[in-house]
Amino acid sequence: MARVGVIGIGHGRFGRRSDATVQELAFEAFRIAMADAGISRDELDASVVAAVPEYHKQRSVAGVVQEYLNLNPKPTWLTEVACASGSAAIRTAYMAIKSGLHDVVAVIGCQKMTELETAEILALMGRVGDVQWESVFGTTFPGYYAMFANRHMHIYGTTHEHLLQVAVKNHHYGAMNPNALFQKEITLEKALASDPVASPFCVYDCCANADGAACLILASEERAKALCDQPVWLDGAGCATASMSVLKRPDLTGLSSAQEAAQQAYEQAGVTPRDIKVAEVHDCFTIAEIMAYEDLGFCEKGHGGPFIEEKRSYIGGQTAVNVDGGLKAKGHPIGATGVSMAYEIVSQLRGRCGQRQVPDADVGLTHNVGGIGQYTFVHVFRRE
Amino acid sequence: MARVGVIGIGHGRFGRRSDATVQELAFEAFRIAMADAGISRDELDASVVAAVPEYHKQRSVAGVVQEYLNLNPKPTWLTEVACASGSAAIRTAYMAIKSGLHDVVAVIGCQKMTELETAEILALMGRVGDVQWESVFGTTFPGYYAMFANRHMHIYGTTHEHLLQVAVKNHHYGAMNPNALFQKEITLEKALASDPVASPFCVYDCCANADGAACLILASEERAKALCDQPVWLDGAGCATASMSVLKRPDLTGLSSAQEAAQQAYEQAGVTPRDIKVAEVHDCFTIAEIMAYEDLGFCEKGHGGPFIEEKRSYIGGQTAVNVDGGLKAKGHPIGATGVSMAYEIVSQLRGRCGQRQVPDADVGLTHNVGGIGQYTFVHVFRRE
Repeated sequence: MARVGVIGIGHGRFGRRSDATVQELAFEAFRIAMADAGISRDELDASVVAAVPEYHKQRSVAGVVQEYLNLNPKPTWLTEVACASGSAAIRTAYMAIKSGLHDVVAVIGCQKMTELETAEILALMGRVGDVQWESVFGTTFPGYYAMFANRHMHIYGTTHEHLLQVAVKNHHYGAMNPNALFQKEITLEKALASDPVASPFCVYDCCANADGAACLILASEERAKALCDQPVWLDGAGCATASMSVLKRPDLTGLSSAQEAAQQAYEQAGVTPRDIKVAEVHDCFTIAEIMAYEDLGFCEKGHGGPFIEEKRSYIGGQTAVNVDGGLKAKGHPIGATGVSMAYEIVSQLRGRCGQRQVPDADVGLTHNVGGIGQYTFVHVFRRE
Repeated sequence: MARVGVIGIGHGRFGRRSDATVQELAFEAFRIAMADAGISRDELDASVVAAVPEYHKQRSVAGVVQEYLNLNPKPTWLTEVACASGSAAIRTAYMAIKSGLHDVVAVIGCQKMTELETAEILALMGRVGDVQWESVFGTTFPGYYAMFANRHMHIYGTTHEHLLQVAVKNHHYGAMNPNALFQKEITLEKALASDPVASPFCVYDCCANADGAACLILASEERAKALCDQPVWLDGAGCATASMSVLKRPDLTGLSSAQEAAQQAYEQAGVTPRDIKVAEVHDCFTIAEIMAYEDLGFCEKGHGGPFIEEKRSYIGGQTAVNVDGGLKAKGHPIGATGVSMAYEIVSQLRGRCGQRQVPDADVGLTHNVGGIGQYTFVHVFRRE
């Protein structure tokens, strides 16, 4: 079956963007992606927008973005699966092209997170977990992931130092990414001394909310070859789900949705974990990256702590992970994150990441988790 | 290219459903659709959920529905384009199947609207219009559509009696629909005497918020033929957009997105407006149905008033419209509405609507509008 290629990518600065509305953020990324693809609006058939509208004053986000980007009357619609919304939009556009309905589709992930007060955001985020049985009793997102961390530490001997080594790595690379929210290195000592959030987590275990947008232009194989010298192919699109409530999970030390989605994507793309040279994984909390190493098969179950300790997820190690800073240092505008991950992987496969470039990057993946793992999307990208 | 068929349909009661959570509403419709399709969960590949989560206490709606329906680890994700979310989910599932990624997909439209206070809902709905330039100045949904009505009345001589004749028809048929919120007839006199809302609208010009859910099971042509004696085919899927702000619209008497989406769907299905025996159109306000007659080509521009006056949208007329009661009498659980429309059209094409059956119904369509026309989806269904 015909492939789907990425022919353009764009990314804006992540951070507290009180200078821009959500549609202005979207335009920032879209403009760059369209210039990168070298196409005009006439050559675009449709767009798919990713956002979690409840954090915005403006709702009907797909409509306001479509209008501001001057794309009417082309089709658009929005996908929402919490923090994995961006990957759901990529999956939707991928299907739109593979179905033959459209040839060239823009995927726009865009999110305002700083229009609401932090307490309001915390309450809204809690409702992404199971409201009836969990969040009403006070479970917050840091609380959920702290449970996963405690369990991982208990069973596998993972330490808080292991967790914070993830943060040190991601800040190390974030310092080299001009689009990142935090562009500064941190030390393990500084991280360990930061304020507690939810045991064992302290501040540096947690990613930060940010405003931001990213954009991809996807095209059918035929159009991609005609329009682009160096398309990057989306060869595997895995998606799987798991229970909302941790109560129902037999294992808290990994995400079954991620394991299943990875297997789907590897099979579709015909690759194994060892083929992945560079990966963007969903490090909303430090433990999440360690779980991702294991769920994606980069290391054996329980060996995630040593994997970061031995710097096997650094450039030059086995698989470079989150070398754009990850959610931790780059920031996490939830609707944009999945698209931002794909932006980084495509940049890496094109060899355009400068001092953050992973040598010989030919196959990469994104691992984007919604909620507390009730959805995971894994996308495998490959250059020719 | 291979077709996509509807092999199962399900629908719950619309209304103030304080007896059920959103996932329970979803299950009600899903259970019926699965029994109708005669398949087990094992035969289902994925689901697409439609809802507007901001009206719910529970967010991450796709996840909570997927878990409650016992569909983990199958893929799911949610589409949201305001009141057209249900049709966006159908379009997504249609593409998922046509792309070859999945063979059998459940589409679940589900919505709670009564968990919030009316004033809160009104404020949220206003934000579906342009926040920056319009809703902040007090424009509400009835206000937007009242502008359309006034303009239509001014240019084409449409009267308030014409508008309310739509409500009389839809209540007439709603009285025969056991799933409808309002199952009672009204008279034109009673409607005219109802309280004012936004001039020219009075209460009976406006549809009512409701909780509810509906479900479709879609399948590839091959699977549909194997699983189902009488599949109904989704042969045209049109989608188009228009500006968010009425300020930018050259014409307020019709929706350009609806005209464009209809043209796409007609072309794909190879039909003309005269082939449509039965239609479900988006009568959020009475004027919207009159505009839909014109936008869909059932009558000439400006002739929508006489079209209802002459009962050409009744059963036995030219094209039967909203003979399930429409949004007006059936209720409008916004995430479910597009799926509910498709439920009715499939039921009609199967000939199973009892006293509301449209004779010789072989081709039907749904016309589902998001916001104030910033999105319209038109789907053409056909029986063999």
